[in-house]
Amino acid sequence: MNEGRSDSVVILSGGFDSTTLLYYLHERKRIPAVITFKYGQRHNKEVRFAQMHTQSLGLLHMIVDLSPLQDLWLKSSLVNKDMEIPSATHVSKEVPPSTYVPNRNMIFLSLAIAWAETLGVQEVFYGAQKHDIYGYWDTTSEFTSRVNAVYDLQPNQILIRAPFVNFTKTDILQIGLKIGVDYSKTWSCYRGEDLACGNCPTCAERLKAFHDVGIKDPLHYQ
Amino acid sequence: MNEGRSDSVVILSGGFDSTTLLYYLHERKRIPAVITFKYGQRHNKEVRFAQMHTQSLGLLHMIVDLSPLQDLWLKSSLVNKDMEIPSATHVSKEVPPSTYVPNRNMIFLSLAIAWAETLGVQEVFYGAQKHDIYGYWDTTSEFTSRVNAVYDLQPNQILIRAPFVNFTKTDILQIGLKIGVDYSKTWSCYRGEDLACGNCPTCAERLKAFHDVGIKDPLHYQ
Repeated sequence: MNEGRSDSVVILSGGFDSTTLLYYLHERKRIPAVITFKYGQRHNKEVRFAQMHTQSLGLLHMIVDLSPLQDLWLKSSLVNKDMEIPSATHVSKEVPPSTYVPNRNMIFLSLAIAWAETLGVQEVFYGAQKHDIYGYWDTTSEFTSRVNAVYDLQPNQILIRAPFVNFTKTDILQIGLKIGVDYSKTWSCYRGEDLACGNCPTCAERLKAFHDVGIKDPLHYQ
Repeated sequence: MNEGRSDSVVILSGGFDSTTLLYYLHERKRIPAVITFKYGQRHNKEVRFAQMHTQSLGLLHMIVDLSPLQDLWLKSSLVNKDMEIPSATHVSKEVPPSTYVPNRNMIFLSLAIAWAETLGVQEVFYGAQKHDIYGYWDTTSEFTSRVNAVYDLQPNQILIRAPFVNFTKTDILQIGLKIGVDYSKTWSCYRGEDLACGNCPTCAERLKAFHDVGIKDPLHYQ
């Protein structure tokens, strides 16, 4: 474990984008402390992948269990199993999809920043990406820069870095393939069943990325 | 209970400032849903007062237990019982006191905002005040306005309101006395012992406020 040597914090879900970010940092000889959140997400199998990657890189890992707070997110189909996950053809860039988890990203960033302050490091890495077919208000570069404006006021001046914020999943995949990310060990599908569904918004973006670069996704689909 | 009728969310600790804020909102016929946080604070007896006030006003109350996350705040004397709470004569406006809890206020605001989104209300009230003898970076009007700049991006456009942000404890006490707040049922002391200590930074500000308005604090001191 690199407890005392961490030089930053990274938020890792175990999904496609943040796992690529983890290896991207490792490639650059960074030693991030890793923070992962359970929040009652349907696709909590991503957490096992997060553990696997963090362990294999010998990094410090904090898994924060926010699942007792599910009442905060009753109206999100990513948390509320009585709701249906929309298929990719039913989402757009104009209307937030039902998979939006209210203020989730700011909550995750806030907790990651608290940990960075306690560890005495100044950077928090966040795997926000540019979505192709849908979008969330809290994954944009404008969001990141306004959050950083808040932390400019803080004596410790924590900086949020989102190196992929203007990259699509195809761009991220190209980076990940170059540095040898094993995408069979990343989970994206919002439905969280045994096999990935292949038609929810995040499966659709992931499959498009593999299609764009001309290789087969190593994950098994229904 | 006013479950369906809540028109806002208020963060209530059970302390002097936020309890005054609660009654200030009630006086104005507002019906806030109340959110209170346990985070391993030494002075968790404030939570009982928060429950008492919320119940007596018949408001919806969510108590969020973040105490499993104490590792995030190991270097704060407000959480880490192996550290000492400084006396008021050992703090200043220049250096953050050891009672600073890393990023606590942004974490609380983020969770309160998530709840506001789920309840379908647009205002989150926050009892930030202007400190006399010490200060935190995340209780200022500049902090509030930069956080609001983040939420301007959000489709739901949640607004954080901190009506006391430029008021000292003396100003807040004058408001509270006019509307009949029972200050014997508010807890401030950071040490969280049976009786308030009278010399930690928050006791000092509280006693100064009562001294300024020329009445005796109904709370018992050591």
